[in-house]
Amino acid sequence: GFATAAQSNKVTIGLIPADGIGREVIPAARQVLESLPKSEASPRFEFIHLDAGFEHFQKHGVALPDETLARLRGECQGALFGAVSSPSHKVAGYSSPIVALRKHLDLYANVRPVASVAGSGQKQLDMLIIRENTECLYIKQERIETDANGLKVAYADRKISEYASRRAGQMAFNMALMRDKLRANVPASERLWQGKPKVTIVHKSNVLSITDGLWRETVRGVKENNQALYSGVDMDEQLVDSMVYRMFREPEAFDVVVAPNLYGDIISDGAAALVGSLGLVPSANVGDNFVVGEPVHGSAPDIAGQQKANPIAAIRSAGLLLEHMGYSGDAARIYQAVDGVLREGLIKTPDLGGKSTTQEVTDAVCKRL
Amino acid sequence: GFATAAQSNKVTIGLIPADGIGREVIPAARQVLESLPKSEASPRFEFIHLDAGFEHFQKHGVALPDETLARLRGECQGALFGAVSSPSHKVAGYSSPIVALRKHLDLYANVRPVASVAGSGQKQLDMLIIRENTECLYIKQERIETDANGLKVAYADRKISEYASRRAGQMAFNMALMRDKLRANVPASERLWQGKPKVTIVHKSNVLSITDGLWRETVRGVKENNQALYSGVDMDEQLVDSMVYRMFREPEAFDVVVAPNLYGDIISDGAAALVGSLGLVPSANVGDNFVVGEPVHGSAPDIAGQQKANPIAAIRSAGLLLEHMGYSGDAARIYQAVDGVLREGLIKTPDLGGKSTTQEVTDAVCKRL
Ligand SMILES: CC(C)[C@H](C(=O)O)[C@@H](O)C(=O)O
Ligand SMILES: CC(C)[C@H](C(=O)O)[C@@H](O)C(=O)O
Repeated sequence: GFATAAQSNKVTIGLIPADGIGREVIPAARQVLESLPKSEASPRFEFIHLDAGFEHFQKHGVALPDETLARLRGECQGALFGAVSSPSHKVAGYSSPIVALRKHLDLYANVRPVASVAGSGQKQLDMLIIRENTECLYIKQERIETDANGLKVAYADRKISEYASRRAGQMAFNMALMRDKLRANVPASERLWQGKPKVTIVHKSNVLSITDGLWRETVRGVKENNQALYSGVDMDEQLVDSMVYRMFREPEAFDVVVAPNLYGDIISDGAAALVGSLGLVPSANVGDNFVVGEPVHGSAPDIAGQQKANPIAAIRSAGLLLEHMGYSGDAARIYQAVDGVLREGLIKTPDLGGKSTTQEVTDAVCKRL
Repeated sequence: GFATAAQSNKVTIGLIPADGIGREVIPAARQVLESLPKSEASPRFEFIHLDAGFEHFQKHGVALPDETLARLRGECQGALFGAVSSPSHKVAGYSSPIVALRKHLDLYANVRPVASVAGSGQKQLDMLIIRENTECLYIKQERIETDANGLKVAYADRKISEYASRRAGQMAFNMALMRDKLRANVPASERLWQGKPKVTIVHKSNVLSITDGLWRETVRGVKENNQALYSGVDMDEQLVDSMVYRMFREPEAFDVVVAPNLYGDIISDGAAALVGSLGLVPSANVGDNFVVGEPVHGSAPDIAGQQKANPIAAIRSAGLLLEHMGYSGDAARIYQAVDGVLREGLIKTPDLGGKSTTQEVTDAVCKRL
């Protein structure tokens, strides 16, 4: 992390609930982290609350306060971000704080695992989406003009760089190897992905031959220029439109999927539909020096404050945070506790067809840690 | 059409099979058009074969010959386009002929109906996707530079204009009204969409506040500035990532969906997965003066030339072509014949789990006309 822990096992986590159900699921994730059994190797957590979000913007005129950034950099080794509300039309001066956070902390890869729970009777899949997290249309370079007929014409720049594409590609191939290693510990009958590890590159280079051409060539180059490391990883590719189609027809055909920012955003929401709820899908925004866990779902204003939100995406995001900070044992405990609750299928929030509250699901996970 | 028919009922259709299975499904669609029962009101078809595609490019150095464009403009009232192969990496001088065709003929709306067949036991949906067809990232303005470290950086322009957004929006609201009118003829028990007609606007204005902001405002304006015409049509909106999620969770929640070019491309492939096969989904590229029918699927080189291709997307595209040329009676005959074959479920190509050939499916449709 940016801030080096004073004592090696002390970990300071910034909690940024932001808007809506973020304020229910981030405390749930915190409770799970605090309930982890203490061992010599596991971290001792300190938490600090940090502000951000649309509501904060409405009150104070700023969506991501300087203080939040400064304290993340100065005091924290990682953070958990809840969810942010989007105003439905342009609000002068407002800009998404999570997009800004990714950029300011150089969190270049958004890691989004989407997997069915073995034995849950669901459609089987075990995908890891690596979404490039700093550029593409998210650079927010936009302009508007008026044409000769007095009509408006707007442009946005889409940026694809060799630098960012390579970092995202390396993350994809490294995670493919890592997943393969971890799978060795899973009984063969429970392994969803049986083959050689594989990275699928998503692009639209039949239309965007220069930008997506550069993306494609660079990610391919990660393997081609480092066969010693990656010869054990297969590589294929999908046009983004076909990817969405195939993901729904044969989700079991994918292992690691690597995509430019916007395609990754769309694909990960689509994949979430396959596992039954956006409320299950976590992510980690990963950089070389910092990690921010973040559920893939939004702020869900329609159910906020009613204890209806599914805390599992946030709880799993806390697991991803630990995993990418190097505490993979504690991360695995969290994943297994969540899988246990899901497999049992008794305690679930309304998005999964149940009647349990956010707190009840959180307690059930804690009991299994 | 650009070329006015000499005799009012004579219709000249340009056939552009292009690559791969395009060469099997376009003849199938032609056979269906030729098998339509002749009446006073129905058109007399003439067909002319026109070249285009990647294979044509490889032989002659041009993907969309001038002659094809000139004859479409000079002799045809409409066209059917098959599918085009995409080279997996950049080929100097090659550019997609279908994207060029849409632009040259000003085919500003890509109309993509995706519906389950009533009584087929499938997940029920009845969506019409209107995809803006001339701009967004499809303007192909791209450039590449080298940064201070000698690394490549590429940019693409994404264009959203008030002009194009309004035309797409008008098409969406007009089609919503049209569908509502046609539904009145369907027995209530067979109507998949029961409510007031609705247009859902897809965007990502939480990130692209200027370009997608302009898109959103302009499409909303179509209704807001013309309540006399459109007050009977509901309007809502979805962020593109949520749209893909919701489409898979509750496809029955959508009537007409209107999207910028690239989102529309992705959403329509996704919707195709819901009805069981890309081989079922047709489209029409519609302008004020010309229509090009085009199956949504690609050239499928893996099955080309083997009589395995599903001709239904192309046959339905011929129906859409007629519909948008004003021959809605003949179009309805085609749709009903196809639905009959699908509902019976006996004669189907391998993509639908059957063993029938392209020709057998085509013959079965013709028999029901
Ligand atoms: C809130 C929004 C800016 C964000 C994004 O598009 O990245 C969200 O959809 C996500 O996936 O984290
Ligand atoms: C072939 C390709 C350029 C095209 C597109 O992206 O528009 C295709 O996917 C489509 O949907 O018609």
